[in-house]
Amino acid sequence: MTISHVARLAKVSTATVSRALTAPETVSLATRERVLSAVAQTGYTPNRAARSLRVQRTMSVLVVVPWQITPFFSDLLLFLDRALAARGYSMLIGDLADRAEQEPRLVNLVAAGQVDGLILLNGEILAAGGRRVDEMGIPIVGLCVPAAPSVPAVLVEDRKGGEAVAHHLLALGHRRFGYLSGPPGNFNEIERCAGFCEALAEAGIAATEIVRYRGSFHVSTGAAAAVQFLDASDRPTAVFCASDMMAIGFMLKLQAHGLAVPADVSLVGFDGIELGTFCAPALTTVVQPAEAMARAAAERFVALLGDDETAGPCDRLPVSLRLGGSTAPPAARH
Amino acid sequence: MTISHVARLAKVSTATVSRALTAPETVSLATRERVLSAVAQTGYTPNRAARSLRVQRTMSVLVVVPWQITPFFSDLLLFLDRALAARGYSMLIGDLADRAEQEPRLVNLVAAGQVDGLILLNGEILAAGGRRVDEMGIPIVGLCVPAAPSVPAVLVEDRKGGEAVAHHLLALGHRRFGYLSGPPGNFNEIERCAGFCEALAEAGIAATEIVRYRGSFHVSTGAAAAVQFLDASDRPTAVFCASDMMAIGFMLKLQAHGLAVPADVSLVGFDGIELGTFCAPALTTVVQPAEAMARAAAERFVALLGDDETAGPCDRLPVSLRLGGSTAPPAARH
Repeated sequence: MTISHVARLAKVSTATVSRALTAPETVSLATRERVLSAVAQTGYTPNRAARSLRVQRTMSVLVVVPWQITPFFSDLLLFLDRALAARGYSMLIGDLADRAEQEPRLVNLVAAGQVDGLILLNGEILAAGGRRVDEMGIPIVGLCVPAAPSVPAVLVEDRKGGEAVAHHLLALGHRRFGYLSGPPGNFNEIERCAGFCEALAEAGIAATEIVRYRGSFHVSTGAAAAVQFLDASDRPTAVFCASDMMAIGFMLKLQAHGLAVPADVSLVGFDGIELGTFCAPALTTVVQPAEAMARAAAERFVALLGDDETAGPCDRLPVSLRLGGSTAPPAARH
Repeated sequence: MTISHVARLAKVSTATVSRALTAPETVSLATRERVLSAVAQTGYTPNRAARSLRVQRTMSVLVVVPWQITPFFSDLLLFLDRALAARGYSMLIGDLADRAEQEPRLVNLVAAGQVDGLILLNGEILAAGGRRVDEMGIPIVGLCVPAAPSVPAVLVEDRKGGEAVAHHLLALGHRRFGYLSGPPGNFNEIERCAGFCEALAEAGIAATEIVRYRGSFHVSTGAAAAVQFLDASDRPTAVFCASDMMAIGFMLKLQAHGLAVPADVSLVGFDGIELGTFCAPALTTVVQPAEAMARAAAERFVALLGDDETAGPCDRLPVSLRLGGSTAPPAARH
């Protein structure tokens, strides 16, 4: 029996359960009664770590990121630092990717009361044994990815971004498409791909007709995909890359081989990093609102600490297509 | 009277002083006697935080980086994470740049024994009031920059890198040079610039003849410098940029304006990030040995914890010039 069960039964967050038990004066009488009733029903025993945790604020947040820190995450972390600082918080960055042995250390940091809560940019933590953290009754906010069903998150409209790319390329007259993926199982890339493929399917282009390239969001995988593109006889006329860095790697590799963008192929990225605006041609991309995402995550976090239960489980912030010179109508067939 | 005074007098590190006082069985008898004698001479009273700190290892390191996390730092942090993990350590990342109010939080984290020590990629911390950390008797290692005179550091041969760039460009026949700087006061950029200018001076080219562009290591400042370059009537034939991202911004902006590298100008960067190898042409650059730097810093850190005083105050790792297609002999004058 965990604090999550109590929270679900009482229809409040795990943070509120913790506060109701450790600092009852900070929650309303009605909330306290709901929580105590749920505690009685479930037989839940709060652990000492969770109890001691709420006594003193550290004004620090642990931000957990997946390795490696891409240019987009670098921007996002900078905005997050500012947004948290504006609310009196400082942040520490930690990672857990591919390293199960770090998880106990994260738990220790939380249990020792060195941070007031977590912002997770890595959705695999709670799924991969980080449950203990989820049960400690501290605020957790997902950013970019849903950390767990019970955890509120600030997401973007990845799927609509993929759709917008498809609509833009279809409107230019493209009919033969390529898609360069992110790492397997990545939440964002799955959504982006789904939106892209569904919009193409509506235009009569089957998913099986789309040339697939495998990437990992890293620039080198964009360059590798470009080599595959160059080696194929039947090339797509437009390629959607699931991140800007991959699109930039793709573009640079093509240019190094004497091909021109968009004359030989139209390219679209996803993220909206500044580097894309300096490319020649500037990269057409789906812009994620990094500053608004950071602000929303900081607000969510502070609201959780402050016992605000009014917000829903997830924010979905809109993305926007930014047109650069990397997309154009397909060249006439030779 | 601080632990630093004791350490200086006893000719050991502050970490050793701390260990001699809190875990005397871990240091040699001779060392312990030297420390106790120095303590007696200085009248130093170790504080409780420092004492409690050594009781239990957390196996965590706090890595303090300057904002923002550039692609080079992203690579370096990845290698550092691996190098520390190989030695049983995990790392947290924090920053203090431009934010004096974070310093007490860092001190708290250290005092609470949540980390065993610090690796500082930001040399301004200890100078800007971080002395309290320096006096807590925990291991501190500088990386890329010397954190303080008393702190061992892993540096690279920035100056020799600048010299190598000058020699390469002189050998190609260049006589009119530009230099794109990093942020004011940055240790690395000062060294790189000094090496470049001194080598040019030896070839009879005065520092006043070098066209100066101001940058901040950021890609956008490279693009801005390219605009200045384009607007000038008397252009240098070769530009040395103090970071790869600036060189890439410079190159992309020139290409967007229809100029060619190296036909219209030779470009050289500094760092050796992967993105530079994908540029068309590939960027000539000074490669910092990121993996070796990370390994050396991790080794330094573990040696300090283990009371190893044999290493000198600083490592200076060699850099190497990597030739790409972005440098060539200057075009004949029109």
